[in-house]
Amino acid sequence: MFKQFFINGGVTAPDGFFADGVNSGIKDDSLDLAFIYSDPIANIGAVFTSNKFQASPLQHFQREKIEKSNFILINSKNANAMTGERGIQDIYSIFSTLSKELPIYNPVMSSTGVIGSPLPVEKIVEGAKSFDLNSKNHLNASKAIMTTDTRPKEIAVEVQLPDGRSYRVGGMAKGAGMINPSMATMLAFITTDLKIDTPTLNRLLRETTKTTFNAISVDGDTSTNDSVFLMANGKKDFFDEVSFRETLHLIMKHLALEIVKDGEGAKKLVAFRVTGAKSDRDAEKVAKTLSNSLLVKTAIFGEDPNWGRIAMAIGASGVEVCEKNLTIAYEDIEVYRRGENLFTPEVEEKAYQILRKSQFSIYCDLGLGDGEFTSYTCDIGYEYVRINADYRT
Amino acid sequence: MFKQFFINGGVTAPDGFFADGVNSGIKDDSLDLAFIYSDPIANIGAVFTSNKFQASPLQHFQREKIEKSNFILINSKNANAMTGERGIQDIYSIFSTLSKELPIYNPVMSSTGVIGSPLPVEKIVEGAKSFDLNSKNHLNASKAIMTTDTRPKEIAVEVQLPDGRSYRVGGMAKGAGMINPSMATMLAFITTDLKIDTPTLNRLLRETTKTTFNAISVDGDTSTNDSVFLMANGKKDFFDEVSFRETLHLIMKHLALEIVKDGEGAKKLVAFRVTGAKSDRDAEKVAKTLSNSLLVKTAIFGEDPNWGRIAMAIGASGVEVCEKNLTIAYEDIEVYRRGENLFTPEVEEKAYQILRKSQFSIYCDLGLGDGEFTSYTCDIGYEYVRINADYRT
Repeated sequence: MFKQFFINGGVTAPDGFFADGVNSGIKDDSLDLAFIYSDPIANIGAVFTSNKFQASPLQHFQREKIEKSNFILINSKNANAMTGERGIQDIYSIFSTLSKELPIYNPVMSSTGVIGSPLPVEKIVEGAKSFDLNSKNHLNASKAIMTTDTRPKEIAVEVQLPDGRSYRVGGMAKGAGMINPSMATMLAFITTDLKIDTPTLNRLLRETTKTTFNAISVDGDTSTNDSVFLMANGKKDFFDEVSFRETLHLIMKHLALEIVKDGEGAKKLVAFRVTGAKSDRDAEKVAKTLSNSLLVKTAIFGEDPNWGRIAMAIGASGVEVCEKNLTIAYEDIEVYRRGENLFTPEVEEKAYQILRKSQFSIYCDLGLGDGEFTSYTCDIGYEYVRINADYRT
Repeated sequence: MFKQFFINGGVTAPDGFFADGVNSGIKDDSLDLAFIYSDPIANIGAVFTSNKFQASPLQHFQREKIEKSNFILINSKNANAMTGERGIQDIYSIFSTLSKELPIYNPVMSSTGVIGSPLPVEKIVEGAKSFDLNSKNHLNASKAIMTTDTRPKEIAVEVQLPDGRSYRVGGMAKGAGMINPSMATMLAFITTDLKIDTPTLNRLLRETTKTTFNAISVDGDTSTNDSVFLMANGKKDFFDEVSFRETLHLIMKHLALEIVKDGEGAKKLVAFRVTGAKSDRDAEKVAKTLSNSLLVKTAIFGEDPNWGRIAMAIGASGVEVCEKNLTIAYEDIEVYRRGENLFTPEVEEKAYQILRKSQFSIYCDLGLGDGEFTSYTCDIGYEYVRINADYRT
């Protein structure tokens, strides 16, 4: 059996990957421009937002049909979305200038921030010219991609196979709002020194996104810029799909949960574990309706074991349900079992003690079949409103 | 052409309708139990929530296949939802006792409040025994049905036809949260002294609900109890569909907008007027995605002309859109026109002045066809969180 070890290094932990972040003047004085560089050129896969107004960097990637690249340039504070053809041409212009200074091949851009403003091309070019492609400052890179995030999000794992071979996978992400369960939902960058072809990268990304980045919700809004990239540079001349698949899931789930925990103003991480649905698809619908319900999320913020709102959201999800088959529990405290209300003052107090914790699960068994899905969400409180009422200013 | 006059009297304005509200002890000291009584027996139509866990009163109404009634009993503070067969039997028990005291025929129950607790049958019976069926205290009735509402919501209109005949329509409603655009969304009671058969009542209710109660959103949650009732007692021995249809629309729209304006903590009433969609259905999807977007609603709360979030929500609605065809305007201030960002500091200031108002429209023209729909919503701010974090307590 293979072994996994958490290590330092973020996206630069795998062999041949470099990264850093600088201030290019888009933000007043904090880091706002990052790069990931791979030597040698890596295969690259990507999944993008379901939003119909895909931002310019996503359109650029698809127009160029990029399958191999050695360079991702990431800016925060400006989404380069709803900027039309100019937004795409700005990316070509940036890379055209940079290619004279840096050994970049099929460069990829990724942006996050305010929608609708043209990209500050000059600042970005000047900032990128100062990059040291030999740097392994992964922490600066993960800081430079933050918007309303309160902390950088990164992880790296070394995998040791029984035959003595080893490889590494690293990742970083940003995201704290506009996080929606129906799509990829934020920016994430994952690197590995394994040798994996691009179709396989895309397949594994899609599969793993379903139960990680697509299972989380902060506010139910879907951004124009959500992207997850996966680069494999083949410094290790082999591929072990079984261990990689599991490691990729571990990394993507970790980053996804880091985003929920950092949900704007969030104090609690809640898992809605839905079982007994007619199908996995039904369970997913119920889990996502729960993790998107404002009334459920404000009750969690208020530490109120108001299971009626959970029942309300289950009933509103549109899937087949039956009162007599439903069971609802906060961790191991059942409050409603197959049509029977178990909510005594004693049970309420026990449920309240669970709600006071910063991390817990709410179980909803529909009692109708074998379908199951788990979604992750956070509470919504005053801080969410404060942050989003004045994001621009 | 017929004439419409606003008059006093709420649901008791039409001839033969009576109403009142009392405190029965479900709430500590405010009104919590109301009735509407009609002499003679009226035809009654109803539309109910799309939530799969319909509350007991809704199940009772459908099990009894009620088409005529002279009595609606309404309690607040307890939803009688998720209470199973017992919840329905409690209603039978209440009416069985009351029928010995009051001349009620096919009595109808309607409830709103916390989900999951059994109905306080004794209190309700005792409270109802004290009803004076000759009372026309419509204001007390409209107060007794309130939960988190900050004010009663009622209206009455007298219609005068060119030939000298006249009739009246009255209405009252409650609702301030759990208001969702995909269904009926609150409790509303409408009375008229016209003579209208039950199938026609049901047809007109369904038609009119689409552009009134189904076009509003506070938080996107769908309650287990939402109901709209329409009673016609035939005291006036005629029916004029043209004028009634328009008057019913006026009354239902007024009550729907009163609910949005009273949205928990809401300070602003916003209309999203979507035009140029491929179909009315598409326009409806876009309008409802906009009025349910937390990021859009918190930007409105913050008086931030952040049109990028509006674009984000349009793109996320799932319908066909094209950046180059889209136009977004705050009232008459265009901020984005057919792919072009018009957002200068001067335009931003003008848009901000519109956002400062308590009531305004945001226009989104998709530029693709003739489909249109208008949805109504409110801002979401600190008060919403405060109210919903401690509703039970």
